[in-house]
Amino acid sequence: MLTLKKIEIDTYRDNVAFLARNCDLYRPEEYQAFKKVEVLNNGCNCLQAKLLIVDDPAIVGPNELGLSEQAFHRLGLAAGASVSIRPAVPPQSLDHVRSKIHGHTLDPGQIEQVISDIAAFRYSEMEIAAFLVSCAGFMTTDEMLSLTQAMAKVGNRLSWKAPIVVDKHCIGGIPGNRTSMIVVPIVAAHGLTIPKTSSRAITSPAGTADTMEVLAKVDLSTRQMQKVVEDCNGCIVWGGHVNLSPADDILISVERPLMIDTREQMVASIMSKKAAAGSTHLLIDIPIGSSAKIRTPTDAMRLRKLFEYVGGKIGLDVSVTVTDGTQPIGNGIGPVLEALDVMAVLEGASGAPADLREKSLRMAGTILENDPALHGGTGYARARHLLDSGAALETMNKIIDAQGRNTSQQELGPLTSEITAPANGVISAIDCFRLARIARYAGAPMDTGAGIRLFKKVGDTVRKGDPLYRIHACFQSDHHFAADFATEASGYTIGGHP
Amino acid sequence: MLTLKKIEIDTYRDNVAFLARNCDLYRPEEYQAFKKVEVLNNGCNCLQAKLLIVDDPAIVGPNELGLSEQAFHRLGLAAGASVSIRPAVPPQSLDHVRSKIHGHTLDPGQIEQVISDIAAFRYSEMEIAAFLVSCAGFMTTDEMLSLTQAMAKVGNRLSWKAPIVVDKHCIGGIPGNRTSMIVVPIVAAHGLTIPKTSSRAITSPAGTADTMEVLAKVDLSTRQMQKVVEDCNGCIVWGGHVNLSPADDILISVERPLMIDTREQMVASIMSKKAAAGSTHLLIDIPIGSSAKIRTPTDAMRLRKLFEYVGGKIGLDVSVTVTDGTQPIGNGIGPVLEALDVMAVLEGASGAPADLREKSLRMAGTILENDPALHGGTGYARARHLLDSGAALETMNKIIDAQGRNTSQQELGPLTSEITAPANGVISAIDCFRLARIARYAGAPMDTGAGIRLFKKVGDTVRKGDPLYRIHACFQSDHHFAADFATEASGYTIGGHP
Repeated sequence: MLTLKKIEIDTYRDNVAFLARNCDLYRPEEYQAFKKVEVLNNGCNCLQAKLLIVDDPAIVGPNELGLSEQAFHRLGLAAGASVSIRPAVPPQSLDHVRSKIHGHTLDPGQIEQVISDIAAFRYSEMEIAAFLVSCAGFMTTDEMLSLTQAMAKVGNRLSWKAPIVVDKHCIGGIPGNRTSMIVVPIVAAHGLTIPKTSSRAITSPAGTADTMEVLAKVDLSTRQMQKVVEDCNGCIVWGGHVNLSPADDILISVERPLMIDTREQMVASIMSKKAAAGSTHLLIDIPIGSSAKIRTPTDAMRLRKLFEYVGGKIGLDVSVTVTDGTQPIGNGIGPVLEALDVMAVLEGASGAPADLREKSLRMAGTILENDPALHGGTGYARARHLLDSGAALETMNKIIDAQGRNTSQQELGPLTSEITAPANGVISAIDCFRLARIARYAGAPMDTGAGIRLFKKVGDTVRKGDPLYRIHACFQSDHHFAADFATEASGYTIGGHP
Repeated sequence: MLTLKKIEIDTYRDNVAFLARNCDLYRPEEYQAFKKVEVLNNGCNCLQAKLLIVDDPAIVGPNELGLSEQAFHRLGLAAGASVSIRPAVPPQSLDHVRSKIHGHTLDPGQIEQVISDIAAFRYSEMEIAAFLVSCAGFMTTDEMLSLTQAMAKVGNRLSWKAPIVVDKHCIGGIPGNRTSMIVVPIVAAHGLTIPKTSSRAITSPAGTADTMEVLAKVDLSTRQMQKVVEDCNGCIVWGGHVNLSPADDILISVERPLMIDTREQMVASIMSKKAAAGSTHLLIDIPIGSSAKIRTPTDAMRLRKLFEYVGGKIGLDVSVTVTDGTQPIGNGIGPVLEALDVMAVLEGASGAPADLREKSLRMAGTILENDPALHGGTGYARARHLLDSGAALETMNKIIDAQGRNTSQQELGPLTSEITAPANGVISAIDCFRLARIARYAGAPMDTGAGIRLFKKVGDTVRKGDPLYRIHACFQSDHHFAADFATEASGYTIGGHP
């Protein structure tokens, strides 16, 4: 038997095992051909891990088996425990993946096996990639539905006392689009239940969870989240902690670096989380624009139909709103800047961004009309009343206090550069993708005060030298990197000339 | 700047970099979202690597950058060198992979970019998997041709003085099928040039390189190989050392664990190596059988057409022979046992396996007819003469001496078990796949003396209790594992009853 040792290396999603090349009990080269081993404790298969061979006895000795931090934690045994290994029997569900690769469609049971093996960390990154790519090539709507249901099944499922539980989701890609943080307090102030879970940024400069974290704690447990919703009708928490769709979290960790982003996978990902969150009514925001995820009305329509199809099959009432995605929403990009925009709208401040206010009101209005007590067409007016009366602000403060107010000072990045108009003219386009990258290079979302403050939007007239936006950064290297990148191409087009 | 440190961990094909979580210069979590970093020396991008975060200062300190053995070697700098990192710009050719995933076909230039990035270790395993799976779904014959050419281009190319350079290749899957080691000395004895490169076993119990290594050194350099061929007209060396298709070696390292094995990829893999090896005439052996890689004559015909198509386009004269793949060839499975079979045939020993002799003679005969001096139909007789006269044996000994005779004693595994017939009857089938696994579990090819000695073949009459085969192993644990597995199901079918 080998002695278990924890190796302090963070291998993220992968389980990794380490064996000395001069191991006393096994010949590691023999195992390398198999690529994965099963780690056994008392003869019982506990964990599958990728095997790496180590030539440094300080890392792993000849009678030791090392496990990376995640694998060690998942195995759940104490260091020093006796373990053995054997070549891993690959998950049987890989047969289904190969079948899919070769052009067959999978039935619900097969998809469920794949997803449950992925959620149990039995797939390596390359096997996950094989599954995703085989699905990206072609996927039937029934497979998409099975995928949604299988992903919702392996995670936590929330349940609520209220007969109507509303939710909203934006497919993303538009910087500054923080409507959730205005819609939730309006809807909650009205009295509907809206337990919102949001994501953190992966490749964007801020997710709703990152922006909310400027104001309050967001990594609540399921129980804490339920208490906040009981007290306030709504919440804005980080979904990762609530573990609604662990398989989706794993799939996304491979989808992102590969940049595979198909409609079917997007729908399954979103709908599995909403189904697990216990929502009954869902509003989906699909922004269209030349630098958004969806670029044409035809694409938006197809995506809308997919959401409606899955919603209908899993008993979730889905509405889709197609919105303007030609430029960022609001004036700030980055956690602190976006939080300032949100609070300005809720407070009715004079400089509050009109586009963010208007879009939030329209979405809140649509959601409010799910209340049978509200007359058709009156949702918008009701939302505006709740916002302008201060009721939404009051609810937001209640939610913030219930989640745990962030009392630490949140300052804007002190290093700034202004990017100016190169000519007179009218702003005709703003590249969302470029601005997101600039904000990211400036340090967002890791440095909450980093990002971009916009001074001009599409349709505004500018004179040569007028500032278009200001970059905020916290570190000199990030500041230079972002400013240089913005100087190279600002992301703004003036009168048809970029 | 960070100080470079070699981390004694063998990460196989992947480049892996290690950064301390409390790094002085970078915030490693920020890099983890990008998954890959570029390592720079003097501001010049030298290497792309996957990043792992380390929490143990004994492995990587806060001002150090660790690189795994392979990555360190590929970077080529001394430990202690100053390096910096930045988020890796993914290889541009990944755009082509995504395009392929979405159903487009790739042109030769695009495929060449992908292959050259793979050969330069710029793809992670998950990116390689994405490329392979996208090709496995659908690939045009033109794409297959481009892939062949691109793979041949990135490796070494051998050239020979002789106007006719012959070669043979078996698509594999049949245990004991060591015809190369008989065909090469026959053909070389005749005077044709046959520079044979062979593979080591990856998932089989022996490759031709493993079996030849029982007799002689096989890891020759290109120059050494050329010297042997000059002196003897032929050689039998390990192809991995000659580096004919490094991209293919990398692709195979991902194909095998995923068990993706499409016809197009097989053809591109084989033909790229043959093109790089400088062959002019190639004989391909496609065994058909219910437990072979190809199971029906229709499949064999399709595969044959693909080989001929690519051969025609790259100027390589391809002949295909479809052979009996219903059972193992020869009596031994495993390096030493197979080497004994080969030498018995070359020596004309009385117990030499007739099927291995006959198949080798037929293949050698077909190859010899590429000699314009030989009349059509006389190849077989010429091959038999060269074998029976001892000329082939003499040439084999010359080749063995030229490559470097292995003088160490090669003994059969001393731990043995006999598997016996459960009933009277006639052997109707032998499962190649099952026998390969039993031999592998017994320790082949790592323990050269481990494997299986067959006593009965298809068509033989047996009485209950007659030995069917004997398992040889070198270690007690392997012995039990293989014997138990064989007792569970022997792989033999007697009179229709397994």
